Amino acid sequence: MKYCSACGAEVGLRVPAGDQRPRHVCTACGSIHYLNPKLVAGALPIWEDKVLLCRRAIEPRSGFWTLPAGFMEIGESTGEAAIRETLEEACARIELGEMYTLVNLPQISQVHIIYRARLLDLDFAPGEESLETRLFAEHEIPWEKIAFRSIYLSLRHYFKDRANGHFLFREETLGALS
Amino acid sequence: MKYCSACGAEVGLRVPAGDQRPRHVCTACGSIHYLNPKLVAGALPIWEDKVLLCRRAIEPRSGFWTLPAGFMEIGESTGEAAIRETLEEACARIELGEMYTLVNLPQISQVHIIYRARLLDLDFAPGEESLETRLFAEHEIPWEKIAFRSIYLSLRHYFKDRANGHFLFREETLGALS
Repeated sequence: MKYCSACGAEVGLRVPAGDQRPRHVCTACGSIHYLNPKLVAGALPIWEDKVLLCRRAIEPRSGFWTLPAGFMEIGESTGEAAIRETLEEACARIELGEMYTLVNLPQISQVHIIYRARLLDLDFAPGEESLETRLFAEHEIPWEKIAFRSIYLSLRHYFKDRANGHFLFREETLGALS
Repeated sequence: MKYCSACGAEVGLRVPAGDQRPRHVCTACGSIHYLNPKLVAGALPIWEDKVLLCRRAIEPRSGFWTLPAGFMEIGESTGEAAIRETLEEACARIELGEMYTLVNLPQISQVHIIYRARLLDLDFAPGEESLETRLFAEHEIPWEKIAFRSIYLSLRHYFKDRANGHFLFREETLGALS
């Protein structure tokens, strides 16, 4: 951030009164511009014993498989974001279940939230950001080709919980890759 | 948002290629500026049968009581944010328990997350953004003077769950005040 989005003048880094850390503050109008982590919401859509995955058509991780998920928009809830992203990326309609995983990724200042969901019909298809959409049974999951660690974790938990017969909400924080 | 934070030129609202909704796009350098909901994280700090509340010294809701909570910073996890906010607003050290409530507030594009926590000592005191900090037993809680609905709900759930002998993670979405 170099310029003030309110007045167009240059911003400088300084600690505002009553604050503890440097912020981008406008040198002309004094506006303080805060940067905050972003929320990503998505779904784990189930049909019988299978889960719906999308193969990404865009970077990052183009060509890899993921659950339908994306950045929350202004004015929506995490659940609404998960339903919208599933429609956009997989053209799929779901009935949302419970919030299932919340994964902190402080290195990239993101929080990923995945809901369990029931796929309502089989009329899914790749959206603009997907190359392919497909249902996978547990033994078919392309574990080596999953796009993101938060998605990998959510899928691992899902199959383990399903085998155990009950599902548990989980929060995780992922550190840097070693 | 009127000006591009990357180059200082004017931004206009238009739908970028492959997108479905209008964004603030720079008329000069083409940068797309996304707006996203913000995460607030906080704690419900317990000492014996009492909960630690802070009376707000700042707007919004100055003079009303709340749990220590605030906007997540870049580079931290939701749990780290809850610990930091408790230290900043109540000068209190806590041991974090489980994530307890996640409350969507789509009208103001915020998501509030509250953790259960154990207060580690009684050396708490008002931070810069608080007028007063105090422990409250259930019958002492100033229910009419609680600053935010997400905090009110989290406290209600807490005392109900405590009476029932077990705590359950809960997601809620709050609509407009009627």
